[in-house]
Amino acid sequence: MYTKNSVYLALVHYPVLNQKGEIISTSITPFDLHDIARTAKTYALAGYFIVCPVESQRVLAQRIMDHWLTGVGGEMNSTRREAFQLVRLSESIEDVRLTISQETDKSPRLIATSAKKTARSIAYKQLKQDFKESDSPHLLLFGTGWGLTPEVLEQVEATLEPIEGGGDGSYNHLPVRAAVAIILDRLLGKDI
Amino acid sequence: MYTKNSVYLALVHYPVLNQKGEIISTSITPFDLHDIARTAKTYALAGYFIVCPVESQRVLAQRIMDHWLTGVGGEMNSTRREAFQLVRLSESIEDVRLTISQETDKSPRLIATSAKKTARSIAYKQLKQDFKESDSPHLLLFGTGWGLTPEVLEQVEATLEPIEGGGDGSYNHLPVRAAVAIILDRLLGKDI
Repeated sequence: MYTKNSVYLALVHYPVLNQKGEIISTSITPFDLHDIARTAKTYALAGYFIVCPVESQRVLAQRIMDHWLTGVGGEMNSTRREAFQLVRLSESIEDVRLTISQETDKSPRLIATSAKKTARSIAYKQLKQDFKESDSPHLLLFGTGWGLTPEVLEQVEATLEPIEGGGDGSYNHLPVRAAVAIILDRLLGKDI
Repeated sequence: MYTKNSVYLALVHYPVLNQKGEIISTSITPFDLHDIARTAKTYALAGYFIVCPVESQRVLAQRIMDHWLTGVGGEMNSTRREAFQLVRLSESIEDVRLTISQETDKSPRLIATSAKKTARSIAYKQLKQDFKESDSPHLLLFGTGWGLTPEVLEQVEATLEPIEGGGDGSYNHLPVRAAVAIILDRLLGKDI
């Protein structure tokens, strides 16, 4: 349900980079549907969009979703059905932006995520505050593969600071599923 | 490498509960090997143990590990090899405890995790403090399936408070991979 400061998430399969820095479209990973839907539901997001321009990939994703939404999967595990109710398939980031604009009557603020420090970065505390005080919805973008392209990072309002782990912080190869969990907890989790 | 307050993690496949509350042994999920190894490496853990008493399951896991440790997987993606170097297979929680005792010369403090509040709970801030000040290694236990059995929860020193998400906090069905990421970030992440 829409509130004035709803938070949405998009998992982007295109345009993203591969290991060589080339622009590619990645395949949909079924685990991403399940894991990120469950995490998105835990943190009460307004929607989880999967952005993939390849129709056959979206058809596959829809079949998995149907199993949990209307098939026997949801009968056996109703909590999984609840999670899948958040998932929507989309052809492009622009489509997601339009969908959110239509359902909230406001243009969303686009915030990217990256494993690398970028020029226009925003701190977790600042964005957490923005979530509370803003009159606009927010859309958090997560890239698959080797991350969102420089073109996408230029188009967003800001990019969240990278997650620094423990030790010397030099290993920054979290699965996107783990990055989503950590970032939603930092931004929307209760104080501990 | 062992330091006086090393932190280890174990993903427990037995003994855990199923949806009906019966004690079962779950199958090893290949995604758990990858995702949790990468998260454990990011937060500089001393080791990631997979506890599974079923030998055929451990053989399967070892084959996947070999692909990344000594096979072509590691040649194509060296960061994945680094992550897999943390993974060890074990038959029981007791075996993990013995292994850690041997390599650290200290008996580890066992801390369980659970999606439900338990009697002897420990707060994140307290455990984070303990990690810094303790002279003992710590072993964090994560259950697969529907979670660790009451018998395991009785044997540990304490159980971490459950993760409360957003909204009314009533949806507590995070994937174990996401729970690991959130908990390691809360306990070992840099201040944000």
